[in-house]
Amino acid sequence: MLIPGNSLITATPEEGRQLAMTISRLVIKTTQPDDAVRSRLRDVYANDAMALLQVGQTVAIEFATIAAANNYWRK
Amino acid sequence: MLIPGNSLITATPEEGRQLAMTISRLVIKTTQPDDAVRSRLRDVYANDAMALLQVGQTVAIEFATIAAANNYWRK
Amino acid sequence: MLIPGNSLITATPEEGRQLAMTISRLVIKTTQPDDAVRSRLRDVYANDAMALLQVGQTVAIEFATIAAANNYWRK
Amino acid sequence: MLIPGNSLITATPEEGRQLAMTISRLVIKTTQPDDAVRSRLRDVYANDAMALLQVGQTVAIEFATIAAANNYWRK
Amino acid sequence: MLIPGNSLITATPEEGRQLAMTISRLVIKTTQPDDAVRSRLRDVYANDAMALLQVGQTVAIEFATIAAANNYWRK
Amino acid sequence: MLIPGNSLITATPEEGRQLAMTISRLVIKTTQPDDAVRSRLRDVYANDAMALLQVGQTVAIEFATIAAANNYWRK
Repeated sequence: MLIPGNSLITATPEEGRQLAMTISRLVIKTTQPDDAVRSRLRDVYANDAMALLQVGQTVAIEFATIAAANNYWRK
Repeated sequence: MLIPGNSLITATPEEGRQLAMTISRLVIKTTQPDDAVRSRLRDVYANDAMALLQVGQTVAIEFATIAAANNYWRK
Repeated sequence: MLIPGNSLITATPEEGRQLAMTISRLVIKTTQPDDAVRSRLRDVYANDAMALLQVGQTVAIEFATIAAANNYWRK
Repeated sequence: MLIPGNSLITATPEEGRQLAMTISRLVIKTTQPDDAVRSRLRDVYANDAMALLQVGQTVAIEFATIAAANNYWRK
Repeated sequence: MLIPGNSLITATPEEGRQLAMTISRLVIKTTQPDDAVRSRLRDVYANDAMALLQVGQTVAIEFATIAAANNYWRK
Repeated sequence: MLIPGNSLITATPEEGRQLAMTISRLVIKTTQPDDAVRSRLRDVYANDAMALLQVGQTVAIEFATIAAANNYWRK
């Protein structure tokens, strides 16, 4: 599974942001399905400034798509 | 919490820019919740040219989304 | 072949996400057609935090295009 | 201050480009407010090919937002 | 020449993808016109995981533009 | 000067692509105005695979904006 709920539509920006974080992680999981390797790499990037910033950049790109899908949750 | 106020709508571009900086930081905080580790990493990237530039790039991407959400604050 | 089915239209977000992963891989395959070299490089990036994050970023960009093509699968 | 004039609207593309450069710098300044540190880092990135190219990329992203805000200054 | 045929319009997504790969290469060729140097660098990036992933990212960005130009080849 | 002709409008995609390359270079020139330093750095990035690829990525982003400004030169 790459998109939980198989939908980009969320009730709120907060949920859209959570979805952005989730789908970016699921790409990593699909590319490296070995839990032990991923766990080791998570220790690396959670303690490395550039890697953490790179996580942030990818979430920003995913969120742009999800926000557009939801018409930016405008009322 | 990933989006303060649970909304992308802001009164002005300045507030939109502040929101872009805030939400990009909150992704880092959620990915690395340990305050001590984050504090140490902040020292790294605030003193490293490439890391600072990377912060700037992610803020630019987040701001693009927020600006679109607000129809660029056109009058 | 760079785009399986020669179309960006998919039935669901999940299939759109799979397409994003596939087309990003096919660019690599076309750029480096030697299976043995690619296999060796895959071992590198599947075990390197920055490379995995970079895979994630490219998939995010491809997915943005596919999601727009499908009007975000809005009902 | 993150956006001088608190507006993304400019009279010309040239002014829009200047604004893109300015707002990308103001994020760096806000993230690293120490003038002496910033001055030292500026020496680094102004003399490093990858860092200069990274400056260029972030300005390109900021400019995309500003150009859209101004409807690309079409007559 | 930077854009073969001087047009972004293609008959199919597959041809659009090929165009994305071609125009991204032509920027490199224009920036480094020496065939011998380019050939040497191609050996580098075709055997380096991060460089190949970077090729993929740039193609993704070029393709986003070409896909939008073609209204995503919707029927 | 950051945008030659102070306009994003070009007659053709080819000219749009040339403009993308020009404006990306002018940001570098403005950030590092010393001709001798820039000349030295150009030697670096014209002979480094990752730097050349980075040039290509920034041109791709600039071109996306210029192409949108010109409605993709659709007839």
